[in-house]
Amino acid sequence: MPLTRHVERHFTSGETVRDIVIGMSDGLTVPFALAAGLSGAVSSTSIVITAGLAEIAAGSIAMGLGGFLAARSDAEHYASERRREQTEVRDIPDAEAREVLDVLASYGVGADAAGPVVRALQQRPEAWIDFMMRFELGLEKPDPKRALISAATIATAYIVGGLVPLAPYFVFAAAGQALMVSVACTLLALLVFGYVKGHFTGAGPVRSALQTALVGGLAAAAAFGIARAIS
Amino acid sequence: MPLTRHVERHFTSGETVRDIVIGMSDGLTVPFALAAGLSGAVSSTSIVITAGLAEIAAGSIAMGLGGFLAARSDAEHYASERRREQTEVRDIPDAEAREVLDVLASYGVGADAAGPVVRALQQRPEAWIDFMMRFELGLEKPDPKRALISAATIATAYIVGGLVPLAPYFVFAAAGQALMVSVACTLLALLVFGYVKGHFTGAGPVRSALQTALVGGLAAAAAFGIARAIS
Repeated sequence: MPLTRHVERHFTSGETVRDIVIGMSDGLTVPFALAAGLSGAVSSTSIVITAGLAEIAAGSIAMGLGGFLAARSDAEHYASERRREQTEVRDIPDAEAREVLDVLASYGVGADAAGPVVRALQQRPEAWIDFMMRFELGLEKPDPKRALISAATIATAYIVGGLVPLAPYFVFAAAGQALMVSVACTLLALLVFGYVKGHFTGAGPVRSALQTALVGGLAAAAAFGIARAIS
Repeated sequence: MPLTRHVERHFTSGETVRDIVIGMSDGLTVPFALAAGLSGAVSSTSIVITAGLAEIAAGSIAMGLGGFLAARSDAEHYASERRREQTEVRDIPDAEAREVLDVLASYGVGADAAGPVVRALQQRPEAWIDFMMRFELGLEKPDPKRALISAATIATAYIVGGLVPLAPYFVFAAAGQALMVSVACTLLALLVFGYVKGHFTGAGPVRSALQTALVGGLAAAAAFGIARAIS
C-alpha cells in the first residue's frame, strides 16, 4: 500500500519540479486560507502572524517528514515484495511461469507466443523477478536516496508558498487591510503558479491557473466564513 | 506528470482505507500542531477554536478539492497519452513493434523469444495499446468515478482527525489546560491510528504507531516553539 504520491517513471519535467508543485500547492492555499479566516475574526495582525507561522511550521513538517517516512515505508514494502518474488521464483518456478503466461494472456498473447518469453526469463532469474515486480504487481522500484531530497524540497516549497499570503500581515497593522493585500497577492501567485504548473503537467495552463486559484479562493472563503460565524 | 498519490493496482485493503489514512494523517497532525502552537501564544481558547476550525475547513478543501482536480487532470493525461499511443500503433506500427522488443529486451528477453508476442499484439490493436500504456509508459488506467468519492473520503477523514485535537478547547476555558488534554488525546489517537495504519500498509504496527506519533509531536513542538518565540 504505497502512501507516497506516484512518481512517474517517464516523468519528463524532473522530480524536483513535481516536489515543488506538491509543496507549493498546499503552501499557497492553507496558510492563505487560515490567515484570511482569522482576519474575519480578529483585528490584530499579530495573532494572524503567530497562527500563520505556526501553521507553516506544522504543515511543512507534516508534509516533509511525513512524506519522508511514507517513502521509506514504500521502499521497504518494495524490498519485502521483491524478496517474496525471489523466493517464489526459486521455490515454485512453475507457478511463477504460469503467472507470466497469465499476465501476457490478459493482453491477448496466447501461451504459444508467450512460451519463449517464459523460457528467456527462466535463464535470468533476477530479470524475471524484476519482470514480476513491474508486470504482475505493478510496483516501481523506489529510489531510497530520493526520499530525503524530496522531503526537503516539498517542505521548502511549502514554506516559500506560505510566506506569500502572510507577508502583508507583517507590513500592515490592521488585519482587514492586510487581508485585502494578501488576497490580491495570493490570488495572483496562485494564478501564476497554476499557469506554470499547467505547463509542466501538460494540462492547459489557463485552465490550471483558474483551477488553482479556485481551490485557494474557496478554501479561504470557507475559512473566512467559519471564523466569522463563530467569533 | 501525475499529481495524485499512486493508487496501487493490487492494493489489498481497499481504496477507502487508503483515502482515510491520507486524510487522517494530516488531519490529526496539522490542526493539532496549530492548536498547540497558538496555546503557546494566547491564553484564550476562543482564538484557538477559531483558528483550528478555519484550518480544518481550509485543509479539508485543499486536500479534497485539490485532490479531485489533480485526479481529473491525471485521467485526462492518461486519455491523451492513450490517444497518442493509438495513433502510433495505427500510423507507425513498425516503430511500436520495435518498442515492444525494447521493453522485453530490458528483461533479457531476446528478439527471437519476443517476436511471437509482437505478432500476437499486432492481431489485437486495443490490447497492444493497453500493453504500451502499462509496460512502456508505466501508466495505470485511472478510474474517473473514484475521484469524487476519494476526494470526499479524504476531506471527511481530515475533518474527523482535526476535531480530535480541537475538542478539549471546547471543554476547557484556559488554553494551557486544554493544551495538555489535547496533547494527551492526540498522541493517543496518533499511536492508535499509526498502529492501525501499519497493520493495513504491511509495515510493522508498533513502528508505524511510534513514527506517526513522532511526526505529530515534532510538528506540534515546532509550531509551539515558533508561536512562543514570536509572541
